[in-house]
Parts: sequence; C-alpha cells; structure tokens
Amino acid sequence: MLGILRRKPEDKLIEILGKDKVLTSLVERKLYSYDATPIPIERAVPMAVVFPENHHDVEKLVEVCYQEDIAIFPRGAGSGLTGGAVPTVERGVVVSFERMNRFRVDLDNAVAYAEPGVVTAQLQEYVESLGLFYPPDPSSFKYSTIGGNIAENAGGPRCLKYGVTREYVLGLTAVIKEGKTVKTGGPVIKDVAGYDITRLLVGSEGTLGLITEAVLKLIPKPRARLTALAIFHNLEDVGHAVTKIFTSGVFPSALEFMDKNAIRAVEEFKPVGLPKDAEAVLLIEVDGTPQSVQEDIKLVKELLEGMKVKVETASTEEEAQKLWTARKNLGPALGNLKTGKINEDIVVPRSTLHQVIPKVREIAQKYQLMVAVFGHIGDGNLHVNFLYDKANREEEERAEQAVDEVFEMTLAFGGSITGEHGVGLTKRKFLKWQMGDVGYELLKSIKSVFDPKNLFNPGKMLEV
Amino acid sequence: MLGILRRKPEDKLIEILGKDKVLTSLVERKLYSYDATPIPIERAVPMAVVFPENHHDVEKLVEVCYQEDIAIFPRGAGSGLTGGAVPTVERGVVVSFERMNRFRVDLDNAVAYAEPGVVTAQLQEYVESLGLFYPPDPSSFKYSTIGGNIAENAGGPRCLKYGVTREYVLGLTAVIKEGKTVKTGGPVIKDVAGYDITRLLVGSEGTLGLITEAVLKLIPKPRARLTALAIFHNLEDVGHAVTKIFTSGVFPSALEFMDKNAIRAVEEFKPVGLPKDAEAVLLIEVDGTPQSVQEDIKLVKELLEGMKVKVETASTEEEAQKLWTARKNLGPALGNLKTGKINEDIVVPRSTLHQVIPKVREIAQKYQLMVAVFGHIGDGNLHVNFLYDKANREEEERAEQAVDEVFEMTLAFGGSITGEHGVGLTKRKFLKWQMGDVGYELLKSIKSVFDPKNLFNPGKMLEV
Repeated sequence: MLGILRRKPEDKLIEILGKDKVLTSLVERKLYSYDATPIPIERAVPMAVVFPENHHDVEKLVEVCYQEDIAIFPRGAGSGLTGGAVPTVERGVVVSFERMNRFRVDLDNAVAYAEPGVVTAQLQEYVESLGLFYPPDPSSFKYSTIGGNIAENAGGPRCLKYGVTREYVLGLTAVIKEGKTVKTGGPVIKDVAGYDITRLLVGSEGTLGLITEAVLKLIPKPRARLTALAIFHNLEDVGHAVTKIFTSGVFPSALEFMDKNAIRAVEEFKPVGLPKDAEAVLLIEVDGTPQSVQEDIKLVKELLEGMKVKVETASTEEEAQKLWTARKNLGPALGNLKTGKINEDIVVPRSTLHQVIPKVREIAQKYQLMVAVFGHIGDGNLHVNFLYDKANREEEERAEQAVDEVFEMTLAFGGSITGEHGVGLTKRKFLKWQMGDVGYELLKSIKSVFDPKNLFNPGKMLEV
Repeated sequence: MLGILRRKPEDKLIEILGKDKVLTSLVERKLYSYDATPIPIERAVPMAVVFPENHHDVEKLVEVCYQEDIAIFPRGAGSGLTGGAVPTVERGVVVSFERMNRFRVDLDNAVAYAEPGVVTAQLQEYVESLGLFYPPDPSSFKYSTIGGNIAENAGGPRCLKYGVTREYVLGLTAVIKEGKTVKTGGPVIKDVAGYDITRLLVGSEGTLGLITEAVLKLIPKPRARLTALAIFHNLEDVGHAVTKIFTSGVFPSALEFMDKNAIRAVEEFKPVGLPKDAEAVLLIEVDGTPQSVQEDIKLVKELLEGMKVKVETASTEEEAQKLWTARKNLGPALGNLKTGKINEDIVVPRSTLHQVIPKVREIAQKYQLMVAVFGHIGDGNLHVNFLYDKANREEEERAEQAVDEVFEMTLAFGGSITGEHGVGLTKRKFLKWQMGDVGYELLKSIKSVFDPKNLFNPGKMLEV
C-alpha cells in the first residue's frame, strides 16, 4: 500500500473532537508552549492544542493519543514556575482545560464539584458568599485553576493552619492510560476503602492522568481575622517565637516571614513603614470569632514582648491591609531591583531557620548575587529569591548555580526541594537526591502503572 | 543431597533476630491469631510470632521472609474490627510491634517521631502536657497504636474539624519488598516532591510494607471546649441543622449523632437523662478560646432554636462529661441488650441521613434484627449496629446478610463501605463494587509494586 498519504495524527483528533476544539496553526501552538517558569528550559512546539469541553472529550482524546503514541501536556492557567505545563516533545498535544470551568456547590454536604479549568479565586469568592471557605491560597489564586492547583498540590500562607490542596480533595474523576476512567472518593470526609488513589493523583503534576472533576471539601468560614507585626533583631528569636505561639494554644492562620533584604525591597518600592533596621519581621494573622482573635493577638503580644520582641497590632482593617500589601508587593518590589529573579520554594525544619538564612547569604555572596528570603515560616517553606540582570547570561548562570547549592543545603538540613511549586522540569535532578534510590524506583513503577507508554506529561518530575 | 534435614524457616528468624524475639510455642502462636473482629473469619495459626526491637530488626526479618516466601502479618494492639491483624496462612509470621514503642517530641518543629508500637493515648497525653495536640481519636485510642492507626488511617469524632490520621503523618520510614527501606517526608508541613508515597502507605492496612517510624504533625492545643445537646423529633432536621451550623462560621470539633434506639440503649444501661421520646440527638462540641466557645455555642443555640430544635448546654465540665459518657457508653449499652453485635462504619453524604436511617431500619426489620445507629454525622460516618444472640448461629447469619444489604445501600447513596475500620477481610468483596474495575486493577498493580510476592498481609483488602 505504498504511496497512500498517511493521515496526520492531529487530523484524527479533529475528526473525533470537532474542528473548534483543536488548534493547529503555528502561532497558536507556539503560544501554548510557555508557562511562567522564569529560567530557560527545554521546550517543544506541540502538534496541536486541544480544548476538551467535558469528561467524554477527555476520554476520547486520551484514547487517540494512546493509540497514536502522542504525548499529552495538560495545562491550567500556565502560571506554574517549574515548567509543568510546557510541552517537551513535538509529537504531543497541549490539553488546555479553559473550557472545562464549571462548578457547583452542594451546600448540605459542604462540598464543591469543580472541573479542572475553574479559576480558584472564582470558586473561593462564590463559596464565601454562602458562608463557606476553600482555604488553599497559592499566590497565583486569582488566575490559577483548580486543576493546576491539584496537579501541583498547591499551598499558600493559610496552609499552616488549614493544610494544602491535598486536604481539600475528597474525590477525583480522572482519565488514565488508554482513555480509561477512574473515580475515587466522593462527597464524604472519611473514606478508607483501598489505597489512597486520590492523594496519589494530587501533586502528580499531570504525569499519571488527566483530572476531569474534583470533589472539594468546604469548611465554615471564620467570622473574624486580625493581623499583627512582630519585629526581630535576631534570627534565632524567630523560631523561638513560633514555638512559644504554638505551645500557647494559638493556631495562627498565617505566619509570614520577611528577612531584612525583603523588608528593604518593599520599603524602596512602596513604603508601608516596615522597620528597615530589623533583621526580620513576622506577619502574624489569627482567625476565629470576633472575640477569639482579640484574645489570641493579646496573648501573642504578651508572649513575644516577654521575649523583648516588639509587636504592632493592626487595629483597623486598613492597617491590616497595609501590612498584607507589603507582603503581596514582595514580588514586584524584588522585580524592581533587578530584571531577573529566581524564586525557589525550599522547605526546611523551621527550627533551622537561623542557620539556613546565613547559609543562603553565604551562597549569594559566593556567586555575587543579591538575595532576599521570605516565606511561610510556620511551614518552614522559604522563598529564596536570587536577583540578577536578565540581559547578563553570565550572571543568570551564576544564579542557577546558586540555586543548585541551595537545594543541596536544603537536603542536608532534612528539608524538601519544593513546598509549593512542584518538581516539573527545573528540579528533576534533585528529586533523586531527595527520594533515594528505593523511593525513586517506586515513583517510576507507580508512573508505569498509570501510564505504561509514558505519554502523560513526559519528562516532568521523573527522568523517564 | 536427599536425607539431609531441612532447617525450618522459623529457625532462620531465630538465628538472625535472637531467640528472645521469636515465639514458636503453639499456645503463643494461637494467642496471636486473633484480633477484635466480632464475626467469624478465616484464620490461620502462624509459624511464629516475631518481636522486632528496631528498624534494623524489621529489615532483616522482611529480608528473610522474602527469601523464604513467608507471609508477614503486622500487628499493633490487635484492636481492629475487620481482621486486619489476623494471619491467613500458616506459612506466615505475626510481627508484633509491642517492643517498638518509643517516641520523642521535637517541640521547635511541633512534630513527634514515633515507632509503630506507641499507644496513641500515651503520645497524646504527653504532647498535651507540652501544650500541643495530636487530634486523631479512634474510640480504641487508649490501647490502639500509632502503627495500627496509620495502617487503618484511623479517625474519630474530632476528625470532622481536624482531619483523619492521614493529615497528621508528615513522613514515614517503611520496609518494603526484599527488606528495602523507603523514607518519605520529614518534619515539615509542606512537601510536594514526587508522588505521595506517605499517604499511599497510610491506610494500606499493612499490605504494602511495614512502618518502622512516623513523623507526626502536632498542632496547638485548643484552650477551651464546650458541649451542647440538641434534641430532634424529625430526622430531616438533623441535616438542616448541620448545614446551618456550618454556614454560620461555627466549626464544631465534634458532631455526634445517636438515633432513638441508641438513646434508649444508653438510658437503659446507665441513665444520663437523654430524652427517650426523641427521634435523635446531636452532641455538639466546639473548641477554641475561652470566649470563642461561648460565642459559638450561643450562636448554635440561636440557630437551632430558630428551627424549633431544643438545645441544652452543658454549663459545667461535669455536665459535659456526663453527655460524653453517654456517647462512650454506647458500646457496652448495646452489648447489654444482646450478646452479639456487628458494628459497621459506613459513610454516606450527610444530606442523605434522613433517607439512610429509615432504609437501615427496613433492612433490620426484613432480617428481624435489632438495630441502633450512631456516629459522626458531620463526616457522614455512621455506625450501624445490628444486635443478635451469639449462641444463635441462624440469627448471626441473618445479621451478616443484613450487613451486606447495608453496604449495597451505602454504595447506592454514593458513600463508602468504610470510614474508619478499613477493609481487611470482612469487607473485601465490597471493595471491588466501590472501586470499579479500573480502580480495582490500579490497587492490585500498586500492591505488586511494593510487594510483588504478595507476602505483606496477604488476603487483606484485596482478593489477590
């Protein structure tokens, strides 16, 4: 049968899904080959971009891809920082979930059913209007999606008290190898039947299958919130303060740390009156009832002042907002100092903070870089930001080398290479160090169970 | 080499571990072939009972068992209700963790490192003396162990607000196939590196490997607690009340439900003054600060009285204790009515409660059995108790048939066959129904990754 023109695989996708759900022009394909990763990574232009509109579309497209050996690169909002949504091979399609963005709330069971393309902030806003609460708050929450948040097991400041995305996923519908559908969990809090496939899919970075629906746990929305600022002249005191707060019975809803360089950057960008001579500040938020937040902040103030740490309480909503604005301005404030920034999200036991920060500064000095550290100190989750000049490739390389050393240091302190951003492409080589040989082999075997052809987001997380 | 006497495999265990760590007498082996499962199950007398004293012992014993094809049956306190700790083949050893019962607390990171044989209540008592809190509270907590709790992903009344055991396991050390060691997580709250092996081991019922150490998350201990009793004359109101409470911003630390038969049983056993004419009662506990618990209970009272539901507040610690005693006496109270009891732990969406309870009563009527229902209604986790005469085998069989129908009903309502007790031997056949073919195949494949020879707790959870 020589001479017969073989149909292109993307034509099969068009035939099965319909023309309006498949983009094939070069411009469009190129547009979908990027995400928010700040450093250079390997990247391929996919053969097509596909827009499924429902679970059945996803089943069909995975079936075709599995028949035709086409790689599948799922994409939420593309706001990931480790290359998770970036295509790595040309024989691949980007699956964008932007049209699967419906959700509904079941008030009587306090759950939401959400498609992967739902924007997290939209869901949060709606459930809060009902008196309920969906806590996971990655800093991208205004545009990132539930699907992306689940794939990365996203977290944020509130996760100290409320837990990460994983804790809010009660059940999933997903499409795995050959287009098979698996359904786990349901609208119930407890379910111990069988191995925990739900949490295996959470944080799997799109490498095990495509999520088409999630059942999300909602909790009562706290009725009040209060913020205070603690000012430290000594890094060791920060850890002691956190221990004092924890053992006093106060469970802060956020404990945000900024080191002196982060403070200075914010004050140079848009001054809010942070103390520029401080070694570090801690933004302490408590939530609860109108009276309990007053009780809690009063207790925190007493405890910390007993350690000679100054505490300023935001007595109005406006003052609290100002403090949070400082925290939220950190990104642009650092961007204001240099054109390039690598924001890493290491996790270390919080008791080691006073050793980790000087070590990070040593590394920065070695590579002649500016560095600022901030993060969620209750979790030990630190954002180490190396700043460099984007036009200067040599300086950029130094920044990349500095990051490598930061990861080595993190593992030496018994920490993790990622608390929020995932492994993706950029941290692949470090995962092996962290997991050890036996653990890494387990990951690869689990991948084969769900995806024997290695077509789901190949090249991400694992070197397979 | 005919004629040479082959060494018995248990001798190899003695040689490697030492004589004092291996029991081989028939009486002792028989003693370790039981757990707390109330119904007849298949059961074998193991070839030996082994008592490892540290991680290295566990590595060695698994290595030998893997070489010699000896099944491994891990055992905590043997308080499980689904046959999880019961040996199923004679070529097997029971591994009792009673000598691995050390733990230590790292106050600065608010974590505990615990060996599997630590009794949960002992750990809880100690961390509470430090101002910290380990919430998981299965009703067996006074004697059950951390290892058993992790294997079963145990829960209890507090898990509505605080989550199940899974949410408190930050890291694990485990021994899997061939005696290999895998280490996951660490003393940090956030860690998204790689697939979630930690939560795959949690709830795996000893079928994937043996846990030798857990890193447990501790949280601040709430400073106050308050209890109220709501009295219902209509089952539909119960669900509505829970929704009203949730959307008001009150997050109860327990919401315990008792139906009319449970109320009567308690009042006949040791009267505490529960209303015998009520259709159901709800024990509502809130925790927080001294003032917030008052605010919360006041709000709950207003909301429920607005629905014409009577609410009694325990104004003293003594009154609160009395209410909780009623709840805790349910087991013996029901045991007082009949000699036999099957206590199943189904989970249903809580909005279906008013349909599920009448359905359960219909099933009881069909099989001419007494039934009482109580449980953690916030979770939808209901304990359906069929009572029968133990000496009457025919009645016992009817109870078993009734349980089968209850599981069918549960799945029809979109629930789960187990919220706390696990699958073990007794719910094996129902797991397939719940998971579906694709899900069930995934479970089997995951089992093979960790345990290709099917030596870890064979016959439990899965039919392999």
